[in-house]
Amino acid sequence: MKYCSTCGDQVEQKIPQGDNRHRYVCVSCETIHYQNPRIVAGTVPVLDGQVLLCRRAIEPRYGYWTLPAGFMENSETTLEAAARETLEEALATVTMEDLYTVIHVPHIDQVHMFYRATLNSTDFGAGEESLETRLFPLNDIPWDELSFPTVRRTLELFLEDHGNNHYPVHVEDIRYRMGKK
Amino acid sequence: MKYCSTCGDQVEQKIPQGDNRHRYVCVSCETIHYQNPRIVAGTVPVLDGQVLLCRRAIEPRYGYWTLPAGFMENSETTLEAAARETLEEALATVTMEDLYTVIHVPHIDQVHMFYRATLNSTDFGAGEESLETRLFPLNDIPWDELSFPTVRRTLELFLEDHGNNHYPVHVEDIRYRMGKK
Repeated sequence: MKYCSTCGDQVEQKIPQGDNRHRYVCVSCETIHYQNPRIVAGTVPVLDGQVLLCRRAIEPRYGYWTLPAGFMENSETTLEAAARETLEEALATVTMEDLYTVIHVPHIDQVHMFYRATLNSTDFGAGEESLETRLFPLNDIPWDELSFPTVRRTLELFLEDHGNNHYPVHVEDIRYRMGKK
Repeated sequence: MKYCSTCGDQVEQKIPQGDNRHRYVCVSCETIHYQNPRIVAGTVPVLDGQVLLCRRAIEPRYGYWTLPAGFMENSETTLEAAARETLEEALATVTMEDLYTVIHVPHIDQVHMFYRATLNSTDFGAGEESLETRLFPLNDIPWDELSFPTVRRTLELFLEDHGNNHYPVHVEDIRYRMGKK
């Protein structure tokens, strides 16, 4: 951020009065431009013990498999965002079930929230952001070709919980580790 | 938003190629300025069956009682944000427990997330944003003087669940209703 979105003059980094963090503040109109984490919402779409994954047609991680998920938009709920992303990326309608994982990724200022969901039918396909979509048996998840750590972690938890037929909400963090891809 | 924070030129509202929503897009450098919901994180701080509330020293809802909560910052988790807000507003340290409520407020582009927490001691007070803080017995919550619908709803649920000694995660929405304050 270099310029004020309110008046167009320059911004500087400083700690506003009564605050304790550096913010972008306009040198002219003094608007404080706060920056906050974003939510990525998605589903674990299941049908007959298989999970639907999408192979990404966009960067980052082009060609890798992901659960359908994307940035939550203004004016929607996380459930609506998760269902929308599932429709957009996998052309699939689902019956939304319970919140399943909340995974913080603080080094990129994101919170990923996945809901369990049941595919309404085998009528799915590849949306614009997917190369293909496919149902994977739980013992045949493409672990070496998964897109993101939060997708991997959600699928790991799902496998464990599927064995117990009990799906509590999991709140976890994924931290950046030096030297780890 | 009137100006591009990247180059300072004007923005216009349009639907970028491959998108289906209006965004602010710079007429000059073509940067797309996405806007996304923000997370408010807080706690239900409990000690010996009483809940700690803060009377707000700031607008909106100056003078009304709230659970300690505030906007999540970059580089933190929702747990960290909730504990930080509890320290800032109530000068209280807590032992964080499970995620409790996730309440969407789509008409103001917010998601409120409250965790249950146990006060580590009776050593608390009024932070800069609070007029006073006080422990309330669960049968003496100041229902007519609560600050926000998500605080009220979280306390309602807490009372119900306290009776059952079982605190599942609640995911709910609060929608704007015409004519309702």
